[in-house]
Amino acid sequence: MPYVDIREVALRDGLQIEKPIPLAAKLELLAAVAATGVREVEATAFVSPSKVPSMADAAELAAQLHNYPDIEFSALVASPNGAKRAIAAGFRAIEYVVAADDAFSKANVGRTSAQATSQIRDIVAIAHESDVIVEVIVATAWDSPFEGPTPVQRVLDIAAAARDQGVDRFSIADTIGTTTPGRVTSLIAQLLPVIGDMPLGGHFHNTRGCGLASAFAAVGAGVTRLDSSVGGLGGCPFAPGATGNIATEELVYLLTDSGFEVDVDLRAAIAAAEVAKSVVGHDLPSALLRAGDRIRG
Amino acid sequence: MPYVDIREVALRDGLQIEKPIPLAAKLELLAAVAATGVREVEATAFVSPSKVPSMADAAELAAQLHNYPDIEFSALVASPNGAKRAIAAGFRAIEYVVAADDAFSKANVGRTSAQATSQIRDIVAIAHESDVIVEVIVATAWDSPFEGPTPVQRVLDIAAAARDQGVDRFSIADTIGTTTPGRVTSLIAQLLPVIGDMPLGGHFHNTRGCGLASAFAAVGAGVTRLDSSVGGLGGCPFAPGATGNIATEELVYLLTDSGFEVDVDLRAAIAAAEVAKSVVGHDLPSALLRAGDRIRG
Repeated sequence: MPYVDIREVALRDGLQIEKPIPLAAKLELLAAVAATGVREVEATAFVSPSKVPSMADAAELAAQLHNYPDIEFSALVASPNGAKRAIAAGFRAIEYVVAADDAFSKANVGRTSAQATSQIRDIVAIAHESDVIVEVIVATAWDSPFEGPTPVQRVLDIAAAARDQGVDRFSIADTIGTTTPGRVTSLIAQLLPVIGDMPLGGHFHNTRGCGLASAFAAVGAGVTRLDSSVGGLGGCPFAPGATGNIATEELVYLLTDSGFEVDVDLRAAIAAAEVAKSVVGHDLPSALLRAGDRIRG
Repeated sequence: MPYVDIREVALRDGLQIEKPIPLAAKLELLAAVAATGVREVEATAFVSPSKVPSMADAAELAAQLHNYPDIEFSALVASPNGAKRAIAAGFRAIEYVVAADDAFSKANVGRTSAQATSQIRDIVAIAHESDVIVEVIVATAWDSPFEGPTPVQRVLDIAAAARDQGVDRFSIADTIGTTTPGRVTSLIAQLLPVIGDMPLGGHFHNTRGCGLASAFAAVGAGVTRLDSSVGGLGGCPFAPGATGNIATEELVYLLTDSGFEVDVDLRAAIAAAEVAKSVVGHDLPSALLRAGDRIRG
């Protein structure tokens, strides 16, 4: 069966928009996530604690990750300095986000898209010096919350820069949950000739109900890696109207019933979603979490 | 552009599970639905008023439909007697539901699947005598809420019976919202050689978050007609855990952004979803209804 690599992002993208929760609660969620069998977990972000207070405990969390030696943990960074902090904290994989539109990029990191792209070189140098994996994630790859549709050429230019700088992995993110299968397929078809050897990942939000359909279209078009969060936890504080990531348990349900192999166990993902709901103290958007699994034959 | 025929089912499947609302409220919803440009509307059901009290006003509603001469209205029926009542009320199209599993069929209409299938002949005779279009809808086409997976052969047998009896259209319904793109594609591939000239429709619920992904997969596999309800209103009182239909506005958003032509206008569908929310007096599951359209380029 074809394999899709699922990365659990509840601890970072999922919690980012929430009020800060205690480290102990994060560790409880982490334990539940680890029990799903997932092999990659985006654990935290090394960004400004004043802008993203829920990630202020990044280094403390990092110190606890040695309990899960079978999982590749990654941290999101937005600058060379963040990369240094993540590596110093022990991360062996980092994600550097470059927004494809200037308005969102400035709101997010105070730099234009071109300025953020030009930092890829420094990020790669810092990471590779320590044998750390670098992924570039293009935010607002289809639409900006401020400017509307993102010109495809911007995404292609960031991909070419990432490829030329020796980035290890490349992802496209539907930051505000606006894309649909047709646009996904179209962008990926234009990206594939540009990305070279970089594995291609997709990051989708279910803001307009189309997240899973877009994720499945992405797999059909050539994406081999998908981000999701248990329960559909998540959003982005800097993108108006952005809501939850696609839910891990819904993604696992869809992919396994459609003939794909994944690392994540469905029942354990549902259990982890219940933990996520408990630690944030409110309902989560996942429909499968409410309905439960189907009756198996 | 390829065309997908959307049928609005908010007035029937959408309202079926709700507490009965006044006829005036239904007419308000109908006016909003008609304003979307949709050409087919499932308006009501001629079934037992004691089992489905929200459809008890079927004949009164039917008497108001002449105000929308450009819309093809249909009524759901579960027996030859229901077909006679629908036609007497003025409907020019009826849908006869046959559940593919016995447990659901007995719970729904008090007959086995085979008994319900054998009535197709009488339904067609009654309808065609009055030049009324007959559609057969296979309920629980993928899973029964009581028995789990539906054997594909059962669906194929119902399709063959419908074809042999001269049924005009044929649809497959994911009554309890359990299917996924892979299973959709597989069933349709097996159905296409059986259905002859009958146009193939799909009816999906978003109970496990996979409704839109399944609907899009159905279109890719050969379905040319899809049911949806504004706001994602809907459910089925006889199917445990069944929740809303796929939302019309999300379906329109997905299809038009993916290069398909539909009759339904997105903004008018969002407006109709607001009316649906108002007439039932509670939130609806549509994510797009909360988030709104994307910024257009």
